[in-house]
Amino acid sequence: AATIPASALTSVKELQKRALAGSGAYEVVESLTTQVGPRLPGTPNDAAAVAWAVKTMKDMGLQDVHTEAVPMPGWRRGLERASIIAPLPQPVAVTALGASVGTGPEGIEAEVVRFANLADLKATPDGSLAGKIAYIALPMARTQDGSGYGEAVAMRLGGAVVAARKGAVAVLIRSVGTDAHRTPHTGMMRYEDGVPKIPAGAVSTIDAGQLDRLLAPGPDNKGPVKMKLVLDVGPQDPITTYSVVGDLKGTEKPDEIVLMGAHLDSWDLGTGAIDDGAGVAIALASAKLIKGLPEKPKRTLRVVLFAAEEEGTYGAIAYGKAHAAEAGRYVLGTEADLGIGPVWQFKMKGNANAAAAQAVIANALQPLRVVHGRDDEEGESSDLGPMAKAGMPVAELSLDATTYFDIHHTAEDTLERIDRPTIDQSTAAYASVLWLAMQASGTFREPAAH
Amino acid sequence: AATIPASALTSVKELQKRALAGSGAYEVVESLTTQVGPRLPGTPNDAAAVAWAVKTMKDMGLQDVHTEAVPMPGWRRGLERASIIAPLPQPVAVTALGASVGTGPEGIEAEVVRFANLADLKATPDGSLAGKIAYIALPMARTQDGSGYGEAVAMRLGGAVVAARKGAVAVLIRSVGTDAHRTPHTGMMRYEDGVPKIPAGAVSTIDAGQLDRLLAPGPDNKGPVKMKLVLDVGPQDPITTYSVVGDLKGTEKPDEIVLMGAHLDSWDLGTGAIDDGAGVAIALASAKLIKGLPEKPKRTLRVVLFAAEEEGTYGAIAYGKAHAAEAGRYVLGTEADLGIGPVWQFKMKGNANAAAAQAVIANALQPLRVVHGRDDEEGESSDLGPMAKAGMPVAELSLDATTYFDIHHTAEDTLERIDRPTIDQSTAAYASVLWLAMQASGTFREPAAH
Ligand SMILES: [Zn+2]
Ligand SMILES: [Zn+2]
Ligand SMILES: [Zn+2]
Ligand SMILES: [Zn+2]
Repeated sequence: AATIPASALTSVKELQKRALAGSGAYEVVESLTTQVGPRLPGTPNDAAAVAWAVKTMKDMGLQDVHTEAVPMPGWRRGLERASIIAPLPQPVAVTALGASVGTGPEGIEAEVVRFANLADLKATPDGSLAGKIAYIALPMARTQDGSGYGEAVAMRLGGAVVAARKGAVAVLIRSVGTDAHRTPHTGMMRYEDGVPKIPAGAVSTIDAGQLDRLLAPGPDNKGPVKMKLVLDVGPQDPITTYSVVGDLKGTEKPDEIVLMGAHLDSWDLGTGAIDDGAGVAIALASAKLIKGLPEKPKRTLRVVLFAAEEEGTYGAIAYGKAHAAEAGRYVLGTEADLGIGPVWQFKMKGNANAAAAQAVIANALQPLRVVHGRDDEEGESSDLGPMAKAGMPVAELSLDATTYFDIHHTAEDTLERIDRPTIDQSTAAYASVLWLAMQASGTFREPAAH
Repeated sequence: AATIPASALTSVKELQKRALAGSGAYEVVESLTTQVGPRLPGTPNDAAAVAWAVKTMKDMGLQDVHTEAVPMPGWRRGLERASIIAPLPQPVAVTALGASVGTGPEGIEAEVVRFANLADLKATPDGSLAGKIAYIALPMARTQDGSGYGEAVAMRLGGAVVAARKGAVAVLIRSVGTDAHRTPHTGMMRYEDGVPKIPAGAVSTIDAGQLDRLLAPGPDNKGPVKMKLVLDVGPQDPITTYSVVGDLKGTEKPDEIVLMGAHLDSWDLGTGAIDDGAGVAIALASAKLIKGLPEKPKRTLRVVLFAAEEEGTYGAIAYGKAHAAEAGRYVLGTEADLGIGPVWQFKMKGNANAAAAQAVIANALQPLRVVHGRDDEEGESSDLGPMAKAGMPVAELSLDATTYFDIHHTAEDTLERIDRPTIDQSTAAYASVLWLAMQASGTFREPAAH
């Protein structure tokens, strides 16, 4: 069973004090978003981001800093432009969904048919949308734990396939976001073999509201709404991008690994400050703070800046394959990929080996105003999926998502969204958990069945 | 001297009560922004707005509803797109300034040279910007009275002329706005005879911040910043648009006019909800509330929805000319063109004839939490300029501009920005002042000199 020594609990107080006084996380995001900017895999910025990460890790003294190749499909975004052309012209703020095929530079013109949600679209007769644009209007709920995203994102992932089955020439969704701004939210979508691939885009929540009003039945309804849609985007040849890995070696048990993950790539509309520059910064600033402690680390801290999370966790999949043989050596993993924080909850699935140490960790996080999540579910993770499947215990440090989806995957995801005290608190929480797992002895894994 | 009868003060309480319970202003903005949308002069939407205004005025029972022709230059906005292309590519949110010439659809590529403000640009040697884009970086101050706008707007109005004199091929300004968003602010600019006309645009305040960081001297400076700029916009043939005028006739002195102004046109990036759908709504809702009072109006209320304010108060100029002969019959005028409110101040230039009545009006506004401005300056006005010059006393109802310039002239200027209780308070204040001036006897004008 995992046990945390008293000395580690003394050091964790110093760690938190230093983090709250200025963790350095803000400066990491500033450097990444200014010197590199947007980080779509396959772009010159993506290569610059990898070089930036290698240099940053080396400069801070991490060991065995290296890149790991990640093969993936290519995709490019060109001109995106939409307007309502009837009953009266007006511009519509639109963006293509990731992986979408394009309309060509000339675009398409078609009538818009509204569906309240994906289920309503599914229920419409096959062929009934021939020549039409299907518009899915579901608004997203604002929640602290980000659960509103899970409900709304189904229309983004699956809308194109359902719409194509009905004969639609394109699908537009209300942006999966909680804001009321003119900034559309991009994000991944999927096709299915055997179903025609149609262009897929998201309109801003405000443009969705305008469509909803124009399409509402009643005396003010002026007839069909026709749109022009240009999404000059599309699949490209396969590319190779790179995850970046660096270690802070343990002095007693260097082969036992505590994993800290974040993703280096970003969507291209903003500069990926909150998604996931914040995670990159929390990871790197945590490692630097831990390295600066007088007490020496026992286990190894590994920082993995995963490639191509947005397009389908390609970096995580490649890492899982490449490191399958060492899967048993991962003590605990956590990732930061839900914005800048604050961290409001610590949560791990309980078991007889882990319970006592989890309570000690939760207790150490209380001064940061973090609650101990008790629902006993597996913590949420994205890039940790493959390693978790291979048995790595996952700690969830719940970043407060209340305002995250106002900004997520939009042009607004820039440095201006980073609040220093907030990301300092998040870094303090992550560094604390990483540190305590590094200094613990024994396992967080479930006892083997008899 | 102006005197306000006691009965009017009883009625004003009822007027305020009805306005605060639901003035109808929100519904006017909703109808205008949904049924018509953006209202750039010369577009089909502009014609639709004029028809909407005539119908709305007639439906609410205003009299002598008519349009007045307004000749003006044409201008069109096409594709707008910018990016930094060196040291690393990233998109830049840009919009053309009104009246700007274009770059052509292929755009231009040039190095960006930064100036902190217009004075610094003026101080640079002639010819020193040959082949370059001049970028003016002045941020705008947030103030309740909107005075920050007056300071910052000079670079928008005059930047192109100064930059062209230095040899620049284009000028970009930091958006004249107080937000930190990715939405550039458009607005009018000017050329001068004898100075080359160069394209003029505004980048969002966030993109300005990114340029500032990239151009800052220091170890992180990666060299010159080069941009690609496409502003496919430009002057067009002269057009005719229309102001819309309607009266609520006075029963005792129908020839004495109290004027309520707002402008019907808007910029085309949003739907002109706060600029100036709000003013249109305050004007029309005030007229309707006054019409609904049991007490009959003595003087005439005239609502003028001016055309083409944004492009240079063309509607106001035309109205001033057309109505010069009746200038002596205007008792008092006010306009609403600074957003949704609340109204926080009532202000008029004082004189022996007006002082007592002004105090009575200010007193009647106190329950709405409006202060009596005492600086004795002329109230601010835009569309009232020509009539004010011809002697019309102007009352300023100061709309709170604290957040107005977050949204002003951007794609974010949509229905979602209208807050019902706030615009109801503003309507209550405007309706009160209009009503009390309509029921007053005597003049607000300065006594004739002996
Ligand atoms: Zn992410
Ligand atoms: Zn993401
Ligand atoms: Zn205006
Ligand atoms: Zn304006």
